[in-house]
Amino acid sequence: MSEYPVVPGHEIVGRIAEVGSRVTKFKEGDLGAIGCMVNSCGKCSSCEDGLEQYCLRGFTATYNSPTEDPGGITYGGYSKAIVADQSFVLRIPGSLSLEGTAPLLCAGITTYSPMRHWQVASGMKVGVVGLGGLGHMGVKFAHAMGAHTVMVTTSPHKAEDARKLGAEEVLISSDKEAMENQLGQFDFILNTIPVNHRIDPYLDLLKVDGTMCVVGAVEPLDKVNAAQLMFGRKTLAGSIIGGIGETQEMLNFCAEKNIVSDVEIIAIDQINLAFERLIKSEVKYRFVIDMSTL
Amino acid sequence: MSEYPVVPGHEIVGRIAEVGSRVTKFKEGDLGAIGCMVNSCGKCSSCEDGLEQYCLRGFTATYNSPTEDPGGITYGGYSKAIVADQSFVLRIPGSLSLEGTAPLLCAGITTYSPMRHWQVASGMKVGVVGLGGLGHMGVKFAHAMGAHTVMVTTSPHKAEDARKLGAEEVLISSDKEAMENQLGQFDFILNTIPVNHRIDPYLDLLKVDGTMCVVGAVEPLDKVNAAQLMFGRKTLAGSIIGGIGETQEMLNFCAEKNIVSDVEIIAIDQINLAFERLIKSEVKYRFVIDMSTL
Repeated sequence: MSEYPVVPGHEIVGRIAEVGSRVTKFKEGDLGAIGCMVNSCGKCSSCEDGLEQYCLRGFTATYNSPTEDPGGITYGGYSKAIVADQSFVLRIPGSLSLEGTAPLLCAGITTYSPMRHWQVASGMKVGVVGLGGLGHMGVKFAHAMGAHTVMVTTSPHKAEDARKLGAEEVLISSDKEAMENQLGQFDFILNTIPVNHRIDPYLDLLKVDGTMCVVGAVEPLDKVNAAQLMFGRKTLAGSIIGGIGETQEMLNFCAEKNIVSDVEIIAIDQINLAFERLIKSEVKYRFVIDMSTL
Repeated sequence: MSEYPVVPGHEIVGRIAEVGSRVTKFKEGDLGAIGCMVNSCGKCSSCEDGLEQYCLRGFTATYNSPTEDPGGITYGGYSKAIVADQSFVLRIPGSLSLEGTAPLLCAGITTYSPMRHWQVASGMKVGVVGLGGLGHMGVKFAHAMGAHTVMVTTSPHKAEDARKLGAEEVLISSDKEAMENQLGQFDFILNTIPVNHRIDPYLDLLKVDGTMCVVGAVEPLDKVNAAQLMFGRKTLAGSIIGGIGETQEMLNFCAEKNIVSDVEIIAIDQINLAFERLIKSEVKYRFVIDMSTL
């Protein structure tokens, strides 16, 4: 889908260099952040409900998206500067580290929003499937919202890390007996696996009326078994990022709970190496580029 | 899964011939009805919530299900008599025709329960996919609950019938333009198609936060596209029958709204012919056997 040249990057923090004459929300020198969206129609029922991510006309993505000006295309955060409408710029609560805040703008809100929507709270058992950029934020949020948080992973070596991130339990999904012991135990499961996979084993973990929300695999899933949804009135849902208001709420929640993303900072000239390491899952859990190295 | 001999039949109405000494709910000569369940554990969280259909130990099905007595098996309604615990026997409101009431015990509650759970009501646009035994009840219920009811079918020749059953609109799913005109319009869709099928076109009909509930296809569905759930925070759910309390509520609702199933009565010796016609979809919309012909 790419329109070249592409400037990627939609987890952006920085300092406001200049404001337009009608800007009221920020002044020069303030910190600001931009996530995955820089515009939406503002008039449809979704936008009116603060769900700009589901704008019925389609939101304008931070990069590689057509702009209102015909022929224009948006460029993202791998850049020294970005220009955006103030209503799509977030405030960064003073206490948060800037590098740890950047990934909150996508990985953070993507995991926070469904947990709020499905009302994750104390007294609930919540599973987070997959421990990567999204999953590590999911564990932090579920734990901070008071849920009994279970990291569900194929990789036994990730157990210790998962506990450090806040998981009360770690469930190794390749361990048949461990999975059987947890059948029908979960109120909510956040599935962050980024590719097509068999979801049956995870649906089996849900309680009656439980929900599994997919936030990773943006593609067709093979053989979703309707019988598993029917016997237990379970639901399979999906969710993308969150609205602008909710993104600000998430940042404020992070400041209150002292949550940031675990990151490794790289210089712009390390980007190809970082990509290779990312493919091999050798990052805990997000690379952040220091744009002063550009 | 059959254990022979099998006596099928789980949409049963009749007159109480005899009551045990501790029966308080019925007396000899009363009308009574039995659906798909004749027992459940009564102690698990589902049973305590009146959701016997999701009993965590598994409910006892009306036929072909092991009984508490070791080696015992349940026999269903294709019979002159059936013995059941009073708590799984429903009262038939006096005003309902008996032959039209029988299918309410499965086809009725299967479509009524999810509509109540997902709060189908006036102001909502509700689709019912597939016009058969389940679908024709779905249309009647959605209409009676006040929703703008749309029959979604591949068969243009079913349009007139669907309107008679209460559909305000008929959407022919093979008509690409008609389907496009209805994109993102539905709050809730009840999917009664009894076999694996492509669900994408129906997910596209849902609004943001809309739900499609599958009640027909008890099997793996090919290539459910998670992207379609994600872009719009849509949910795919499943549901089976309903609890005993809710089944009684449904029968009372039917009496109040004058709803029964459209049936064709047959004698027991026509059963093989009826089966052939059922396979060819030549029934509007449920065969009911007059057991006095046995």
